[in-house]
Amino acid sequence: MLLESLRREVLEANREIARRGLAPHTFGNASGIDRMGVDGSGREPLVVIKPSGVDYASLTPADLVVTDLAGKIVEGSLRPSSDLDTHTLLYREFPSIGGIVHTHSEFATSWAQANRPIPCLGTTHADYFHGPVPVTEPLTAEEVAEAYVRSTGAVIVRRFRRDRLDPVAVPGVLVAGHAPFAWGRSPSEAVEHADVLEYIARLAWRSILLQASEAGIPAYVSEYHYLRKHGPKATYGQPENSGSH
Amino acid sequence: MLLESLRREVLEANREIARRGLAPHTFGNASGIDRMGVDGSGREPLVVIKPSGVDYASLTPADLVVTDLAGKIVEGSLRPSSDLDTHTLLYREFPSIGGIVHTHSEFATSWAQANRPIPCLGTTHADYFHGPVPVTEPLTAEEVAEAYVRSTGAVIVRRFRRDRLDPVAVPGVLVAGHAPFAWGRSPSEAVEHADVLEYIARLAWRSILLQASEAGIPAYVSEYHYLRKHGPKATYGQPENSGSH
Amino acid sequence: MLLESLRREVLEANREIARRGLAPHTFGNASGIDRMGVDGSGREPLVVIKPSGVDYASLTPADLVVTDLAGKIVEGSLRPSSDLDTHTLLYREFPSIGGIVHTHSEFATSWAQANRPIPCLGTTHADYFHGPVPVTEPLTAEEVAEAYVRSTGAVIVRRFRRDRLDPVAVPGVLVAGHAPFAWGRSPSEAVEHADVLEYIARLAWRSILLQASEAGIPAYVSEYHYLRKHGPKATYGQPENSGSH
Amino acid sequence: MLLESLRREVLEANREIARRGLAPHTFGNASGIDRMGVDGSGREPLVVIKPSGVDYASLTPADLVVTDLAGKIVEGSLRPSSDLDTHTLLYREFPSIGGIVHTHSEFATSWAQANRPIPCLGTTHADYFHGPVPVTEPLTAEEVAEAYVRSTGAVIVRRFRRDRLDPVAVPGVLVAGHAPFAWGRSPSEAVEHADVLEYIARLAWRSILLQASEAGIPAYVSEYHYLRKHGPKATYGQPENSGSH
Repeated sequence: MLLESLRREVLEANREIARRGLAPHTFGNASGIDRMGVDGSGREPLVVIKPSGVDYASLTPADLVVTDLAGKIVEGSLRPSSDLDTHTLLYREFPSIGGIVHTHSEFATSWAQANRPIPCLGTTHADYFHGPVPVTEPLTAEEVAEAYVRSTGAVIVRRFRRDRLDPVAVPGVLVAGHAPFAWGRSPSEAVEHADVLEYIARLAWRSILLQASEAGIPAYVSEYHYLRKHGPKATYGQPENSGSH
Repeated sequence: MLLESLRREVLEANREIARRGLAPHTFGNASGIDRMGVDGSGREPLVVIKPSGVDYASLTPADLVVTDLAGKIVEGSLRPSSDLDTHTLLYREFPSIGGIVHTHSEFATSWAQANRPIPCLGTTHADYFHGPVPVTEPLTAEEVAEAYVRSTGAVIVRRFRRDRLDPVAVPGVLVAGHAPFAWGRSPSEAVEHADVLEYIARLAWRSILLQASEAGIPAYVSEYHYLRKHGPKATYGQPENSGSH
Repeated sequence: MLLESLRREVLEANREIARRGLAPHTFGNASGIDRMGVDGSGREPLVVIKPSGVDYASLTPADLVVTDLAGKIVEGSLRPSSDLDTHTLLYREFPSIGGIVHTHSEFATSWAQANRPIPCLGTTHADYFHGPVPVTEPLTAEEVAEAYVRSTGAVIVRRFRRDRLDPVAVPGVLVAGHAPFAWGRSPSEAVEHADVLEYIARLAWRSILLQASEAGIPAYVSEYHYLRKHGPKATYGQPENSGSH
Repeated sequence: MLLESLRREVLEANREIARRGLAPHTFGNASGIDRMGVDGSGREPLVVIKPSGVDYASLTPADLVVTDLAGKIVEGSLRPSSDLDTHTLLYREFPSIGGIVHTHSEFATSWAQANRPIPCLGTTHADYFHGPVPVTEPLTAEEVAEAYVRSTGAVIVRRFRRDRLDPVAVPGVLVAGHAPFAWGRSPSEAVEHADVLEYIARLAWRSILLQASEAGIPAYVSEYHYLRKHGPKATYGQPENSGSH
């Protein structure tokens, strides 16, 4: 039951990637996690993820692959997304997140390819990301050779640890020379964050070409904006919706 | 009656923001003012505004919030847009305007994030804005702490006073590090100006990247263009429509 | 009869401006000329043009305005496009053209606002324009004061005369600080040229930002491309269509 | 029979060029080759190609032109694409390819007009192209005069030979001052590669404007990505689809 509902939400998030134009061809995937197990019995968490190389348009709930947190397939006859090991590692390391979306969206990927974090230049950014969108270090030759996909998760986690970033306050990252990952409390929030990340990447790209200072907006402004949506005194949205923007 | 008609026009302006792609997600809002009161009796003016954080697609007339010029809710069960205090302050300070539209449209926001006014580089601009599109000063830490949203209105008004700008001749502004506001005699004219502002921001951005001079077109050209649409000798459009472009 | 057919073609060209996104709002207009008179009797040529400030979507054949080459209205109850005097002057000076389209299309206008001709950087350009797309001189204060719209036509003609350009080989121009005009043997060819002009403006803008040399492609290449479509030995398209690309 | 199926696939690839917006007007064409002959009898290979200057929307299977590898028309009453001699030369020189697509897509053409190869800046690129997308030398005056279209094929082949490139690992090229050609094992794979080429051209253009290093990603990363899709140990996509991405 719960798993069925998660399957539908993951399917919808994958379709939303396509509808919003965040990933041409099959360059993208969404997953979700049921941390309680299918029956709330506390059994091992299950991850639902897109199969590899399947077109978004033809995706059905039955195509989705269910794995445990070690990546072992529990249900599904198709091969899971080739990025599975990044997803499972992030779910293990970031206990507060419930959905992950990976895209190759145009502007966020362009920043990732330039190995540059996206500075916080305005309130659109500050409403969703607390501080710059970070960029990872490049993978080393050893990391690529040993476990490329898992290492992609590892460099993300390393970046968050080194800079003491909170994955709730910074719901996404750029993988250097690759593309963005975004996440949220649910698959639908993850895809919303992936879309906002693309939009702030567009805005920042255009502002930087107008010689905007990379210092960005003052900390007291970004603090205010972040807290009005996320703090205990949130004033944005309707009270009953305060968690969903 | 009058208020019902204003509700419909404000709803339509909010939908137009979405249709024209001026504000992804819920980054935008439109309002209108009935300066005469609902029965023309001269009672206090009423403002109709979008509720906070509600998706454009699902918006109905009943969702709109009615307030007085001090921002006190007169009708409506939802929380008004978090930008309400900016709208009411502008209605109080600019008596000639009847509608306000706030967006995070891509190119206008990119100029706002770069803290740069949009120079008047051509006749598309000159037909709608008399001179550059101004940019405000950044808010101070005190302004943010005391009354962020009202202060956003205050820095707009300060900019217009300091430079002796007429809100009819300059129907919009960039708030530094934030995004544009546009206005007009009605909500529908306000959204038209928000859309034109985005278009001239696109044109100017591309011209500046071709090393266009920021001095822009000669004053005698911008004067001519502005007056052919707005002066007593306006020659643009049909006589019966001369007020609506 | 002939005039009715011209009305339909001019209406269609105006709608095509909107469909191709070449002019937001009412920033654009198309016209056509019947150089033979309505009955082929050799009476004075008639120009059919869009009325001023009317939305493309609501335009009907009866809305179009018919004038003589001096701009005197022969048929129609609406005020003609405010750019009429530019159109009639071009029809008088360029006897080989049968249709004119004026737009504020984004990239062509951005070049016009930067007062820069569009260099011929590739074969897409060379297939339609023989050499760079020229840019006019700015209008003087006297020209603006005396007859702004007619002077816009005059600076175009002056540019073609000074550089000995053939309006068949160079079917368009950028008016400095304003926007493009394009033309062709018919209104439908004019709108095709307006659309191609926008596309080559996009390509050149992106190439120049990659530091392309403004010298452009060698003359022997642009000559070859132009002649394969336009010379007596044209090899492009089907024989029966050789005139329509 | 086989030829009918190839006709349908070539028609579909031509329509896909239009649907994906890779070639405005008639700036583009797709072809396919049946290397076995219509009856598998080993008779001479046949090429199916778009006719010249015909709009994509109105194209029917019967409009397609069938030629031999020397470009002699075998079936069809319309004149073949003016680029036919480039296609036939590539089919003769690159025996591993089964379909060719030529477009004037915006970003790839902008790189071609700047005479710059597209550096490999990320994994989106590395998944499809092994190393930079090469750019040809400009054609000489003699080559243009003697056989322009065949020489376009010749400069492509020369570039691949000089740099020892494998057309399977590098499924496309930029012709200097002109536009891209892409290819694949079939017409449908060729149009997919033309579309990916446009996307990586967009990404690289934006990254370069953010001052990305042209050195691009380390060789051990591009090697890994290329091999996971193309090598004997491919792990991307479903096993039964491993050849089609």
